[in-house]
Amino acid sequence: MDLVVQKYGGTSVGSVKKINFIAQNIRKLRKQKKSVVVVVSAMAGETDRLDKITKKISKIPDEKEYDQVISTGEKISAGLLSIALIEMNVKAISLDPSKFNLLTDDLHSKAQILSVGTERIKNLLKKGFVVVVPGFQGVNSKGDVTTLGRGGSDLTAVALASALKATHCELLKDDVDGIYTTDPRLYKGAKKINYISYPEMLEMSSLGSKVLQAKAVEYANNLQVKLYVKSTSKTSTRGTWVMDEKNIPIKEKRIITGITHDLKQSKITVSGIEDIPGVASKIFKPIGSAGIVVDMIVQNISTNKKTDLTFTIPKDDLNKTVKILKSNMTKINYKKIIQDKNIALISIVGAGMKTHTGIATRMFDSLSKSKINISMISTSEIKISCVIEQTKCKKAIQSLHKEFKLG
Amino acid sequence: MDLVVQKYGGTSVGSVKKINFIAQNIRKLRKQKKSVVVVVSAMAGETDRLDKITKKISKIPDEKEYDQVISTGEKISAGLLSIALIEMNVKAISLDPSKFNLLTDDLHSKAQILSVGTERIKNLLKKGFVVVVPGFQGVNSKGDVTTLGRGGSDLTAVALASALKATHCELLKDDVDGIYTTDPRLYKGAKKINYISYPEMLEMSSLGSKVLQAKAVEYANNLQVKLYVKSTSKTSTRGTWVMDEKNIPIKEKRIITGITHDLKQSKITVSGIEDIPGVASKIFKPIGSAGIVVDMIVQNISTNKKTDLTFTIPKDDLNKTVKILKSNMTKINYKKIIQDKNIALISIVGAGMKTHTGIATRMFDSLSKSKINISMISTSEIKISCVIEQTKCKKAIQSLHKEFKLG
Repeated sequence: MDLVVQKYGGTSVGSVKKINFIAQNIRKLRKQKKSVVVVVSAMAGETDRLDKITKKISKIPDEKEYDQVISTGEKISAGLLSIALIEMNVKAISLDPSKFNLLTDDLHSKAQILSVGTERIKNLLKKGFVVVVPGFQGVNSKGDVTTLGRGGSDLTAVALASALKATHCELLKDDVDGIYTTDPRLYKGAKKINYISYPEMLEMSSLGSKVLQAKAVEYANNLQVKLYVKSTSKTSTRGTWVMDEKNIPIKEKRIITGITHDLKQSKITVSGIEDIPGVASKIFKPIGSAGIVVDMIVQNISTNKKTDLTFTIPKDDLNKTVKILKSNMTKINYKKIIQDKNIALISIVGAGMKTHTGIATRMFDSLSKSKINISMISTSEIKISCVIEQTKCKKAIQSLHKEFKLG
Repeated sequence: MDLVVQKYGGTSVGSVKKINFIAQNIRKLRKQKKSVVVVVSAMAGETDRLDKITKKISKIPDEKEYDQVISTGEKISAGLLSIALIEMNVKAISLDPSKFNLLTDDLHSKAQILSVGTERIKNLLKKGFVVVVPGFQGVNSKGDVTTLGRGGSDLTAVALASALKATHCELLKDDVDGIYTTDPRLYKGAKKINYISYPEMLEMSSLGSKVLQAKAVEYANNLQVKLYVKSTSKTSTRGTWVMDEKNIPIKEKRIITGITHDLKQSKITVSGIEDIPGVASKIFKPIGSAGIVVDMIVQNISTNKKTDLTFTIPKDDLNKTVKILKSNMTKINYKKIIQDKNIALISIVGAGMKTHTGIATRMFDSLSKSKINISMISTSEIKISCVIEQTKCKKAIQSLHKEFKLG
């Protein structure tokens, strides 16, 4: 059985016209005798609409009922796409997760997929049906609807591709046609990447690339499902493969695969703290307890037993964090707080760093030549991130893109 | 167990404010230690919205998938109402028909309820939960969602009231607070009816009263479930009981219970046909085959072996019917067709007709005194209908309302 598992996002099913368009594409696959399983998101805007109504009734709605409400958008898309296919004389059926046992745990709104029943789907595929599955949702052992969190439809598709032993999982996007070396809106020289490894993709997602959710990439990595990201509309355009590094053709491998930027971070410096053990924990404990995620942390060398500690947090949490720090001023014993919203986090990502040296130096040199000051640095095995002034972000991307010959 | 089964229509759950309002009402019932099962419609406009999108994709959509799409509106309402109740510290749970086995046949979009599982609901009620059920839908033996047709939420409520052996079923309306002797918008003297029998209500629904669907009344009659129609917002206002005639208190019984009007009918006269056997069938066979419902039929006495045949059909089907008749002109052998859109069907309904004579005469006299010409008459055991000029409809209602002392 030549099986294709496809997932279409909210924009791809955002109108009757678009639904008919993707139905045509699926019809072509069927003419090529391929078996097709399709996972669909809710029509663009639908989930937000439902979320808004629900939150008006209750700020913290009952999670079971919330999932019941919020999961309807995908069910509608699945029904509509099936109707469009049947209208084109393509045998199709929408199949709710409860009907084929896509079992999750009980954690409503962020449920984990436990198992995927395949018997019913396989039978339908054998009978020539296109099986259309509403994404983003499953059922728990009690039969209640659960949802998988933002971007959950990608998880559904990956889980199905794995369970049905598909060669890969296709993620079709309406707004982009693959993963790029950097954001094409910020740098015209950005090039589509043909192959990227899971860890690289994971870093890129975590560091600001919005094409794939980090959670879906991690899940694909765990289940060893190859992802193929491509355009919904430009059907003949080549997309991007996300796979295990060992499967990537050697000639496609690069030292640096991509450059990401994140403008949603902000920076806080807690200045004039005593350089004694336990100070860092006094600062970060109350911040962590408030559910605020601290990313980079840098501590200055001390002068007169006093030092500064700088860290980044999401811009949205800046005021909250400052408030927490101020209410703990005597406890922490600091001199002042300096906050900075106008920063950019710029990162280079590449598996080649593991085997090549001098990458960091090349990055710092390149930025320096472009007169861009680096205020913080953080590294991992396959990425180097720098905090710079927000206004220099575009320039930084350009110079790094040229430095690492990504064009 | 003091059980209340309530059904709220689409306007009653049409906004967050309204959902919160009915949640408050349900909370009061719980404070009175009553067990509550609630059936909800989709938020006003939702079903039409989904129907419109679907019909854009396919004029005759696959019926199974159509039901999958069209049934989501009620699921959303059920979830939202449960969330509102829980927010008010009322234990509540939405329960899909698949969860308690509301089993129907396979006739999608007009499924018949076969049986209603009560075990799960009873258990939840015992535990103190308000059980909120999405109306208008069930599941067939294959587990597919089916829908019950327009006004189907009333059917769900009646079926639940019967299965759970509730004393009655409450149908709450946002726009009306009961059944009136006639449409209050057309005649200010209209009075709310305290008690009406099933057959009377059935005639009123069939003849144009829009408060209850005929199908729901018939179903309640079959299952012997008392209906109580009342206002969602004016909670202290008395509503209307719909029940078996023998249970209505004698002092509440009247000869004539109500007056209905229907402006959606039109009239066709096929003139100059031969007065021989088989002509009527030649006329009505092709019309019936086209799915057009003919209501009243009147044939003139013949002159020179030629006669006229006049009948009423829904206004929407007028053009189609004329077309059919024209294409059968030689076969039927008639002289000409006269069509009339400007008619009103005005009816008096009352179980008292069965035992009282002279009612028809009083009706005709009353209309005659008001100078209203009657062009067609049709009678049944408990109603008399007349076709009159549309412009005279209001006047006819007024004079009949006075004649039969309904004020």
